[in-house]
Amino acid sequence: MSRSELGAALGVTRSTTGLLVAALAARNLVVEGEAARLGSPGRPSQVVRPNPDGVAVISVEIAVTSLAVGLVGVGGHILQLVRTEREPKGLSVKRTIDDVAQLVESVRAWLPPGCWLAGLGVAIYGVVRRADGFVHFAPNLGWHDVPVGKLLVERLRLSIPVAIANDADLGALAEHTRGAGVGMDHLVYLSSEVGVGGGLIVDGRPLVGAAGCAGEVGHIQVNPAGVRCRCGAIGCWETEIGGAALLRHAGRSAGSDSVAAVARVLDDAVRGEPTAKAAADTVGHWLGLGIAGLVNTVNPRRVVLGGILASLYPLVAEIIDAEMRLRVTAPAREVLDIRPAELGPEAALLGAAELALAPVLDDPTLVPVQLTQRRSA
Amino acid sequence: MSRSELGAALGVTRSTTGLLVAALAARNLVVEGEAARLGSPGRPSQVVRPNPDGVAVISVEIAVTSLAVGLVGVGGHILQLVRTEREPKGLSVKRTIDDVAQLVESVRAWLPPGCWLAGLGVAIYGVVRRADGFVHFAPNLGWHDVPVGKLLVERLRLSIPVAIANDADLGALAEHTRGAGVGMDHLVYLSSEVGVGGGLIVDGRPLVGAAGCAGEVGHIQVNPAGVRCRCGAIGCWETEIGGAALLRHAGRSAGSDSVAAVARVLDDAVRGEPTAKAAADTVGHWLGLGIAGLVNTVNPRRVVLGGILASLYPLVAEIIDAEMRLRVTAPAREVLDIRPAELGPEAALLGAAELALAPVLDDPTLVPVQLTQRRSA
Repeated sequence: MSRSELGAALGVTRSTTGLLVAALAARNLVVEGEAARLGSPGRPSQVVRPNPDGVAVISVEIAVTSLAVGLVGVGGHILQLVRTEREPKGLSVKRTIDDVAQLVESVRAWLPPGCWLAGLGVAIYGVVRRADGFVHFAPNLGWHDVPVGKLLVERLRLSIPVAIANDADLGALAEHTRGAGVGMDHLVYLSSEVGVGGGLIVDGRPLVGAAGCAGEVGHIQVNPAGVRCRCGAIGCWETEIGGAALLRHAGRSAGSDSVAAVARVLDDAVRGEPTAKAAADTVGHWLGLGIAGLVNTVNPRRVVLGGILASLYPLVAEIIDAEMRLRVTAPAREVLDIRPAELGPEAALLGAAELALAPVLDDPTLVPVQLTQRRSA
Repeated sequence: MSRSELGAALGVTRSTTGLLVAALAARNLVVEGEAARLGSPGRPSQVVRPNPDGVAVISVEIAVTSLAVGLVGVGGHILQLVRTEREPKGLSVKRTIDDVAQLVESVRAWLPPGCWLAGLGVAIYGVVRRADGFVHFAPNLGWHDVPVGKLLVERLRLSIPVAIANDADLGALAEHTRGAGVGMDHLVYLSSEVGVGGGLIVDGRPLVGAAGCAGEVGHIQVNPAGVRCRCGAIGCWETEIGGAALLRHAGRSAGSDSVAAVARVLDDAVRGEPTAKAAADTVGHWLGLGIAGLVNTVNPRRVVLGGILASLYPLVAEIIDAEMRLRVTAPAREVLDIRPAELGPEAALLGAAELALAPVLDDPTLVPVQLTQRRSA
């Protein structure tokens, strides 16, 4: 935007706009320059734009089959990304913290000169207490009561804030900020790989809950006559809609690579192989039924489906629509749409970056004034 | 509070406090006078307190078995209340609007002299579009697509704002404002008479949803092997936990007075009559299972149970606790408690009053300056 557009948008005077732009420029957070000329003649106007190298965060995803660490700038720009596969025997807490620390070091070396490292955000596949990053339960990692926040701070010895949250909550945040949920004040995000995670946006803000563990929708009971969940209860939603459920309904085993096995069922269903198609339809039925319950509860404008659910959705959209018509009142249905996620496998990583960047976006004066920049300003 | 306490709480100067108090006093909204002397010696200090007769709203509850209209002042003070029983054949839209209009007229006559009538709030047992009070579906009234807001405005010819919302959403608001949910930023309210309604508070604010129909939790599917709901679907939560469910599980009919029949089952269960106790236990199981799903979804600090669920709760608290332990993660359980509602049968009416008062509490200058008051100030 030009300075005059900024001033109009903020409702402040020309001189106040100048002071604000100068304060941001002194911190390397914005640069001023010519706007791109979109075929219009005449002298290009000066615009203020975010400096892509002004501030960045380190973003970490602790998943089950992989570890990822990225360097992410304002606007969700991934400046650097390292993802490594994990062996099932490499999931111990100590090994994980060591691996993350090593990846963080390697990624940190890519920080552009003059770029301020504002924080570290971590997405983890488990139930997290946000206040201190304490992981109560991460069933697929086999972790119980692990103080991940404390361990990472001690191991990394970085003097930057560390923020940790559940992967699906962060996927919801990322899709809401720059994916399939942009502009949606009321959003349900649902993602499945092995288990099922959910994240909710209400009135434009993440629904975190009283202890930071809202969105544990995978353990809503849907089928009293169903199978036992890893959590110990019978008939949890994730026993009917996760990757494991798709394999079970298709009568196949996960083998050594459950992700690949699930992908094969989906491919076969697309090609019309009857057993795979029936399995997809069954999962679609339970998916629709559960989504209807969430829609009745929080009345979202959009439901975004990530992970294998994004691939499954086109196959079962009609089955899901039928569940909506059966179970959801007209006014809630009229404002609703359902669509696949847009950010792909990096959604949680991008959400962790948003989480770490939030304090600086709230208060850019947290970034110190850069001496080199100040001289040239 | 004294003026100096007010100034400190607001962080404004003595003179600003004086201006603000004068602006409220000129509108009859506050009065100044001596504080009650709590046994302390010396001269009592002057305090500013809300004027109980300064502003009021008319509050309406359109329920199935009764109609209620109240005159409610700031602080939830019911200045006047009229409740009339309804016959099943008196539930037509026209008859209802006529009856409400008549009750509003009679209650309005009780408005204290000098008291400003700020608005009309309506609680209705149905799915409501908040923007204009359009009732999409009120199954127990047999209403579909009724523009209640428009009809009331036309019939009443009052020049005050009319706000309409679902009864359970307003019960949640009332319990949160001055009942069992005070101070709870994350609250689930659940109430049942014939059907089941829910209302959610998230981050201290009502979760209204994209179309104003969040909290329709009675139609979450819990039992695929269950019975057909009035909505057409099988196994909705309200088919397992409402008054009708309790009667069904007890093998009793509703007779001519379903409310009394339900109360008898509960009384019998308290006395240990085996069939009634078993029915209560069955409802308790489904109640706990559904609450667990809501807790997993929104992670509340408190669940408040209203209507017959308030009476049922002490009988089945252990069954509900067992469902929580089975289905809810430890951190969500640790911050949670469940308790009966405190406001009794007037919860929805008080919530409707809060809804109607909200604009004035947000901006007291909506109330015109009172000439008599201004002269004496």
